[in-house]
Parts: sequence; C-alpha cells; structure tokens
Amino acid sequence: MRQIEAARKGIITEEVRQVAKDESISPETLAMEISEGRAVITKNRLRSFRPLGIGRGLRTKINANIGTSKDSIAYDEEMEKLRVLVKYGADAVMDLSTGGNLRDFRRRLIANSPIAVGTVPIYDAVVRAVETYGGIVKMTADDLFEAIEEHLEDGVDFITVHCGVTRDAIERLKKDRRLLDVVSRGGSFLLEWIIYNDAENPLYEQYDRLLELALKYDVTLSLGDGFRPGCLADATDRSQVQELLTLGELRDRALVAGVQSIIEGPGHVPLNQVELNIRLQKEICKGAPFYVLGPLVTDCAMGYDHIATAIGGAVAGMAGADFLCYVTPAEHIRLPNVEDVKEGVIAAKIAAHAADIAKGLPSALGRDRKMAQCRKNLDWEGQIALSFDPDRVRAWRAERPPRDNEACSMCGELCAIKTVHRALSS
Amino acid sequence: MRQIEAARKGIITEEVRQVAKDESISPETLAMEISEGRAVITKNRLRSFRPLGIGRGLRTKINANIGTSKDSIAYDEEMEKLRVLVKYGADAVMDLSTGGNLRDFRRRLIANSPIAVGTVPIYDAVVRAVETYGGIVKMTADDLFEAIEEHLEDGVDFITVHCGVTRDAIERLKKDRRLLDVVSRGGSFLLEWIIYNDAENPLYEQYDRLLELALKYDVTLSLGDGFRPGCLADATDRSQVQELLTLGELRDRALVAGVQSIIEGPGHVPLNQVELNIRLQKEICKGAPFYVLGPLVTDCAMGYDHIATAIGGAVAGMAGADFLCYVTPAEHIRLPNVEDVKEGVIAAKIAAHAADIAKGLPSALGRDRKMAQCRKNLDWEGQIALSFDPDRVRAWRAERPPRDNEACSMCGELCAIKTVHRALSS
Repeated sequence: MRQIEAARKGIITEEVRQVAKDESISPETLAMEISEGRAVITKNRLRSFRPLGIGRGLRTKINANIGTSKDSIAYDEEMEKLRVLVKYGADAVMDLSTGGNLRDFRRRLIANSPIAVGTVPIYDAVVRAVETYGGIVKMTADDLFEAIEEHLEDGVDFITVHCGVTRDAIERLKKDRRLLDVVSRGGSFLLEWIIYNDAENPLYEQYDRLLELALKYDVTLSLGDGFRPGCLADATDRSQVQELLTLGELRDRALVAGVQSIIEGPGHVPLNQVELNIRLQKEICKGAPFYVLGPLVTDCAMGYDHIATAIGGAVAGMAGADFLCYVTPAEHIRLPNVEDVKEGVIAAKIAAHAADIAKGLPSALGRDRKMAQCRKNLDWEGQIALSFDPDRVRAWRAERPPRDNEACSMCGELCAIKTVHRALSS
Repeated sequence: MRQIEAARKGIITEEVRQVAKDESISPETLAMEISEGRAVITKNRLRSFRPLGIGRGLRTKINANIGTSKDSIAYDEEMEKLRVLVKYGADAVMDLSTGGNLRDFRRRLIANSPIAVGTVPIYDAVVRAVETYGGIVKMTADDLFEAIEEHLEDGVDFITVHCGVTRDAIERLKKDRRLLDVVSRGGSFLLEWIIYNDAENPLYEQYDRLLELALKYDVTLSLGDGFRPGCLADATDRSQVQELLTLGELRDRALVAGVQSIIEGPGHVPLNQVELNIRLQKEICKGAPFYVLGPLVTDCAMGYDHIATAIGGAVAGMAGADFLCYVTPAEHIRLPNVEDVKEGVIAAKIAAHAADIAKGLPSALGRDRKMAQCRKNLDWEGQIALSFDPDRVRAWRAERPPRDNEACSMCGELCAIKTVHRALSS
C-alpha cells in the first residue's frame, strides 16, 4: 500500500512508525499530515533503508548534491563524497551526474547509500539526446519518460521534475525578461526544447503519466522550479510566482492521485524576501513541504556560497521550509571536491539546526543545552562530542594547547567561566 | 571641536564630510544623526586615518578581534592578522591582548592600522593587577582609570567599558542564576572584583570620570555587555535586559556630556529572538548604534562558529544592528590563527552585505546586480573581481578547469546560461 493511501485509511505503515519514532511525534499525527500532503515519506518501494520524513512537525532535513560532469568523471571521488556527506549528517543525496556511465554510477550510488537518493532524470535524457541525436531539442517525450522510469526502477526515492516550465510561462518570460532568465539546468533544457519544437512541456502535458509512474514506486515528486531566480534582482518576480501557481495546482493533482510531492523553491533571494517566499509557497501550495535551493542571500559570495546559503536556509527553515539543499563553497566556480562537500553539509546542518531551535523542536534545544552544560563544567570531551565536526575541534585544540588544561588558549587563566565560578561559589 | 559638539552647532567636520561622501549620504543628515546619538564617528583625536562611521543610514560595519594571550605571545603573527583582516575588508580591529608586553604591541598595532582600533582596557588593568598584586580583586579603581587613559593616549579609537555590571545586577544574578552566568571576560573580572571588595563597579560609580576621559580624546564608548548570554538558554533573560536598561541610561548621560557611545549586544541568541533583541535595544537606547557580538544562533557550531555568527549577524543587521563583531571558526576552541581571521572576516562581510541588501542600500544592491550581469555575460574575470576573495575563486576554478572556457566544470556544455541564450536569441 502507498503512503498516502494507507494514511487515508488510517493505517500506520512501518515507515510512518519509524519516522514518527525518530522524530518523537505521534504516528497518527504524521499519517494525518501525509494524507493531507503536508508531509512525505521519501522512499522508493524497491529500497530498504531508514525512511526519510520531510514536512510539517518534522526536523528540518538537508540534501547534498553530488555527481559527475563531462569535465570530471571520477566515480570513486563521488562515492567518497557519499561517505562524507552521510558521515556529517546529510538526510538525502541527489545524484546530478551528467558525465560517464550515468546508469552504472546511479546504481552503485543507490546500492551504497544508507539515505534517500534523488535524481533529475531529464539530465540523463538530455545527455542521451545529445549523444544520440546531436542535440537537446531532438529528445522525444518518450525518451524523457523512459529515463524517468529507468531511474525509478533503479530505486531512486525522489525525482525533480520541472513541470512548471510551460509554454505560457515561457511566453511571459519573453515579454518580461529577467536579468538571468533561467538558471535551472533542467529548466533551461525544457525551455530550449519547447521553443524549438513549438510544443508543450511533456512533464506538464502528460502529467498523469508521470503520476502513474510515481505511484507505481511510491516515490516523491519534487516539483522543480525552472524559474527560480538566479540572482537577487530576479527574486520574487512574476516568472517565479507564475510557476509557483502552476506547481500548486500540480501538487493538488498529485495528492488526489495519491502521489507524494514537495515543492522546490528559490534560489537567490534578498534576506528581506526569504520569509515572504516561504509563506507565499505555503499558502499557494496548501502547506506542501518546501525544498529550498539555498536561498543565497547575496550573488557575490563565490568561494563562500555555503555561508550565503546557511544564512538564507536558516531563515527559510525558521519560516517553515522543510528541506534545505546544501550549497558548497565551490558553487558558481567548479564541480565540488570532497572537502567542499563536507563544508557544504556542515553549513547546511548548522542552518537546519538553527531553524529547528527557532521552531522550538525539543531535540534541537536539548543539544544546545547539553553543550552549554559542558561549557559550564569545562568538559572538553563533552563539547567535542556534541559538535558537528568532533575531529576538527579536537585537532584544532591540540594545535595551540593551553597551559591550563581546563581552559583554552584564547583566555587561559583569565577564563570567564573559571573566574565567575570562583566568585560566585566563594 | 568634538563630533557631537560640532554636529549640534551645525558644523560639518572633516570626518563627517569624509564618511558622508564614502557612504553617499548628505553630511547634514549624518551630522544630525550624530547630534542625536544614532550614529558615531569612531576616531581618536590623536589619530589620522579614514574615519569610521557607525549607525543609522550607514553601511553595516564589521570588527575583527585579534591579540595575544598568555598561551600565545606571537606579535608578528598578530600583525599578520591585521594585514589580512584589513585586506578582506574589516572596518575596525579590536586588540584583546592579554599576554606579553601589552602596551608595546598596542602601539605597534595602532601605528600600523589604517582602520579604527578598539580595546578593552580592563584586560590590561587586570593583567597588571595579577602581576603586581597576585589577583584581579586587588586592582584599584585608579589602576583601572590609569589603564583607560593610557589606551586613549596611545590613540585607541573606541573602548569597551562594562559599566552595566553593577552591584544590583549581580544581586539579581545571584537570585536568578543562569546556565552560564557571565561569559564576558571583562564582565567576569568586574563581577569578582565587586563581590570580593563589596564595592560598586568603578566604571559605573565614576562614570563621569570616564566621560571626561572619553571627551578629551573624542573616543567612542562601547558600552559593554557583561551579561551577554553565553548560551541560547540564557538569551533575552532578566539579567541581560536589566543591564540593557542601565546601558540605555548611561547612553543618555554620554550624549548629554557630548560623548559618543554605542551599545554592545548579545551573544548566543536563538534565531527567532534575534530581531526582538535588536528592536528592544533600539527602543531602550533611543536608536543608539548597536554592536552585536554574534549573535551565534547555536551553541554547537564549534569549528564553524563563523557560520553560526553569519546567520545571526545577517538577521541582526537586517533588523538594524549597525556593527557586527566577527567570530572566527576557532571560537570556543583556541586563539585563532591567520587563516581563521580571514575566514571570520569574510563570513562577517557576507552577513553585513546581506543585511545591507535587505536594508536596500543602493551600493550593496549594485554590487550584486553587477555580479549577475557578469554571470549573464559569462565574464569570469568580472565575477572574480566582484567576489569577496578573488584569489580563492581564481585558484579553485583553475583546479578543475572546464574544457569549455566560457562555462565551469559543474555543467560544462550543459550550462543553463548558454542554453537559454541560444534558445531565446534564436
């Protein structure tokens, strides 16, 4: 039985029970959120792993993107990225590969991933179209759906589908140009395909076909934002909001069909528009889980885009975003390496944790309270264990060891904690 | 003539003219803000450098802390930190040294700093008291004031003075303990001194003496927050707010005396309380410039506290904080090294820039618009020049060079910008 169907019938699936237990909420509440489309269980029926819950009442989750490109086909490096992103707490991984043997790598990734795996099947279809026909625009609708079914057969748990890049949306864009028009890779492929073929987006026109496939494997549709702003100047504009309206309608149709869906969101967004974007999405899409790709709060943080993203992601999470896509320091520069992946995951974890604290999640508040207790007790091992990167903390402390083992090399004997303890206990 | 005195008389000083020009605002407006205590010009009369303006209508500024400790007395390393923090755009530097020859190092720092220099004179007084008398508590009020005057004579532009750590505040703390009580170093010294000597804080009791000294050199008083929360659990509590009320009163007395002041703020603060803290401070202190030490939005980001701070700092800046103190990745672990200083400065710059964008500052918006234009034009040199760390961007791009020089190794020939350009210009 599929998750929505079960939830509607009041049946608590094994997955709902597991997620509810992990998150310390009641399974009945979670099932109700799923039945109304405000939470999803992201897990392909063919796979077996600790299922991923995303949505209302749940901890803010994070996703890490990896994958090859034409310029860098290094499967083992990508698998090492998987190891590292799992180690540092990513809740999901997306394979965005576009170089090499895509299917072999995808299967290897899925076989080795202890967490949910997402993909963007159109990348696969486009790479094949370029190889087979010499161009993106020669891809057929069937090619695209075949790629999607292959991904689902392989066990992918959620797929990004840019269903909102419609002919109408492109007409608006042509009249109402943006500084960066379309920066979504999938969105750009569909835009070129639609214009060249003078035809509607197959993912929109044959949306029922997509829903059937999704239902077959009970995967989650991540309704992609082809018109996400690629710079602050394009944020919250008419192209973005028009697409959001379409995604909201498609979310309703998915729910009716018993298919789980989440909505992808911006993008590059000025900090003062982040909360607005989340609240607008939640209203338009009736509380559907929101998967934000950033938001980056400045366009200028190349080399440090994980920080620009942590700012936007934390504020988005506080406002209700449920799922944060990490951005690595290498964004806008090159394919990330393993170290970039680690930095990206930890920055996203900090943002998600800060959001969960702001939302009042007891588990998040409890961790910080424990850390503060360890500080009070000058318990360094306790602090190290509670940090996001214990190896770094231990190594850095040893780099410049304090003479006074209870303190650190910043304050030494002038440690405020020690001074106050002495003063108040005298 | 002192800045407030001049502003009251409608005289535009050279410093006001310079800051107004740098910030593209009218000198008359800036002078009015200064006369009413909502902006300050931070510059000791004895020094000559491009003056620092902090406050309403001005760009959000950032400060970087450096300095020796008992465990690490490496003057040249500290001077290298100065070079790096200036290079990456810090607006001010605070010397928090507690190890070695404090005065010699301070003078060397001031002589070499092209930006405003701040200190916490009580560190100096306490180090001397420990050396001379064997304990913090033996320091006399005159010792403290002598240290302050020495700092001002040396040319320090702003000093942190923990005037709000009063006997009343300590009585409240004793009745109403916090998880981490007092984590401010200066605050902890005064707390121990007050309890041991059963006497009032000299900085509070002899506040007029402090004002006289400040006026003599026209330095800015940074009214320190001895009770800033050291963990999320202590944020926005009665100890913190009681001190804020005292600082508000002292701000009024400073303004009457013609002394410029700014207010220091938290600290460790949950993300959902950051805006509240800024708005509360602005109300209580009648719009005085607010200097935030963070805020860190989680206690658990050891090794990555620059990111926890960037989140809090950006939101604080958006809500009206005027001056952000950086935090390095080494915070809570050890004295930072040169690389940590660089990382801390850039994270703070990103936060301040994101805040300035949110506040609608034209110069901030303009930089991002230019970056987006460079992206559209695939102008890599332009992007590199507009980034916060051009050397990193250039080096990282070269590490994994794309075959297609116009694109990057993430997308290569599948670059969305190129695809869309092709589609929309056909």
